[in-house]
Amino acid sequence: MEDSNYKLTPLSELGEFGLIDKITEGIETKNKSTLFGIGDDAAVIQPGGSKVTLISKDLLLEGVHFDMMYTPMKHLGYKSAVVNFSDIAAMNGKPKQLLIGIGVGAKFSVEAIQELYSGIKTACEVYGVDLIGGDTTSSASGLVISATVIGEAEKDDVVYRSGAKANDLICVSGDLGGAYMGLLILEREKKAFQADPNIQPELTQHDYILQRQLKPEARTTVVDILAKEKIKPTSMIDVSDGLASDVMHLCKASKTGCVISEEKIPIDQTTFDLAKEFNIVPTVAALNGGEDYELLFTISQDEYDKVKEIPEISIIGYMTDASEGERLVTSDNNSIELVAQGWDALKKK
Amino acid sequence: MEDSNYKLTPLSELGEFGLIDKITEGIETKNKSTLFGIGDDAAVIQPGGSKVTLISKDLLLEGVHFDMMYTPMKHLGYKSAVVNFSDIAAMNGKPKQLLIGIGVGAKFSVEAIQELYSGIKTACEVYGVDLIGGDTTSSASGLVISATVIGEAEKDDVVYRSGAKANDLICVSGDLGGAYMGLLILEREKKAFQADPNIQPELTQHDYILQRQLKPEARTTVVDILAKEKIKPTSMIDVSDGLASDVMHLCKASKTGCVISEEKIPIDQTTFDLAKEFNIVPTVAALNGGEDYELLFTISQDEYDKVKEIPEISIIGYMTDASEGERLVTSDNNSIELVAQGWDALKKK
Repeated sequence: MEDSNYKLTPLSELGEFGLIDKITEGIETKNKSTLFGIGDDAAVIQPGGSKVTLISKDLLLEGVHFDMMYTPMKHLGYKSAVVNFSDIAAMNGKPKQLLIGIGVGAKFSVEAIQELYSGIKTACEVYGVDLIGGDTTSSASGLVISATVIGEAEKDDVVYRSGAKANDLICVSGDLGGAYMGLLILEREKKAFQADPNIQPELTQHDYILQRQLKPEARTTVVDILAKEKIKPTSMIDVSDGLASDVMHLCKASKTGCVISEEKIPIDQTTFDLAKEFNIVPTVAALNGGEDYELLFTISQDEYDKVKEIPEISIIGYMTDASEGERLVTSDNNSIELVAQGWDALKKK
Repeated sequence: MEDSNYKLTPLSELGEFGLIDKITEGIETKNKSTLFGIGDDAAVIQPGGSKVTLISKDLLLEGVHFDMMYTPMKHLGYKSAVVNFSDIAAMNGKPKQLLIGIGVGAKFSVEAIQELYSGIKTACEVYGVDLIGGDTTSSASGLVISATVIGEAEKDDVVYRSGAKANDLICVSGDLGGAYMGLLILEREKKAFQADPNIQPELTQHDYILQRQLKPEARTTVVDILAKEKIKPTSMIDVSDGLASDVMHLCKASKTGCVISEEKIPIDQTTFDLAKEFNIVPTVAALNGGEDYELLFTISQDEYDKVKEIPEISIIGYMTDASEGERLVTSDNNSIELVAQGWDALKKK
């Protein structure tokens, strides 16, 4: 990369308005609810009929949420958009519009920011979302990415965290722990590189877990499947902090307890093998790793027959009375207290 | 402050979820369109009837947009909210909901963040806005504040930047240049303090301009006045970059030129006197200073009789054909090209 640095355009050459012109070039809006996108003091939207508007925002900071050393700008843009789409999926809705604010230090080139936006735009295309606004400014330190997503759902279809009842089944889509193993691989190769810059990173054979970490997807397809099967979850959240922490969010909001069965937690074979290599119990990666962006939800027991036939969904436990606490039944059949050791950005490590 | 540091609570003691619980304590939503606020993966809103939803976001970064040395946390919170409300006013709408994301370094105490939120909540109360969500994370460097505002307007009432025609009158609310003079005073006293920490800052007699800089207001009252007088501007923007830059945004979007009359630019006496003290032409502070958050808008000439009676509004020029360019007629009757030297966060100083 360093050899070609002379071709890169410093941000100061374009200025804020020049950069905005460049990154918003060719953006067209497609959703009917988007009345006016980029180019004014505010964007204008109007969801049709009885629909409600869902809104969520996320802040991603360099050195906290991502490490520029191993995060390609395009992937970072894609992930920044997708983790927000995931919040809308977690409400049983569909993402429709996105606003992106960036704070960018002088070390970044115009081309790097274009790469970032290329990832954001790709995510918008894949998920049918309109990029309708944002804010661009300089940063005195690292890269700051602030995303706001707007989604839609019929009012009666919205699923909150708070609707679960005792005996509801706890379900999760896809598999868990992969994103965390991807992070461990990247951190390992970073350390190896720092010790000896001449060695090549060993990233082959880790495609799946690296993708889980660097380019996750939002499970809007699961929202579609649930709608098609006419299943309305009683509560739902996306797995961003780790299964343990996120199921406890559902319990807290729903005023229930839970029992999670360790052997039912879905773990991909590559995640399993790599966890063993790192001397980590694979389910610990699933319970505390986070960033998998799978959907964790509860359903009434009446829906069991429908759900058990859906390959994308695993039933991993059930809700209980709050008085029974939050429990994990281990593979050797011990019942232990579930402890959330999910990533908390503010707590001391 | 240092003497009482021992009483302050480090952020690490609470963690992310503890901090969120603390700052969201007691928040209630009041607007009918707010269906669900803080506490889930996304907030849920539904504007009534034929209304449209307006959305805007702003990123405020320590060391770029504010200096912690002279910015009280409570004022900073208030300003972060209000500059976003101003974007909604600039669309001729009313702000209704706010989401706040913060990234906060270890140097901040829980109490400091509570002060910040106290300012945000005060702004929400004053403007009738519901705080409905956000994101809280640690920052590896300075304080990051990301705000997203949601507003409402009847679809036909929305005013864009692009609707002005040649001969439309250019109007501005309130007075200009004060916020910039406030910044100069604060910077002067900061330098004096850095040279000799024992001297007291000279801030008395500067209440008005300091308030313009540290605790600006959004001109939602002007939106009300225009509605009451049944005046719909043909184009509108808020003065955040400076009059010159912002009128040029209207011209660019509306494909017009403009003539601004220097002697018509409204400048408060304290701004005027202080500009003289700093050896600055007062109108230059108004043209290039920015951050006044007044509304700059155009109206059809037919509305002249109605507008000239409104004390909050000054008529400062008129739109022309694009071919005539953007002009300033100076007080000594020279016509010069209007140049935007507004604050551009990405350009080299």
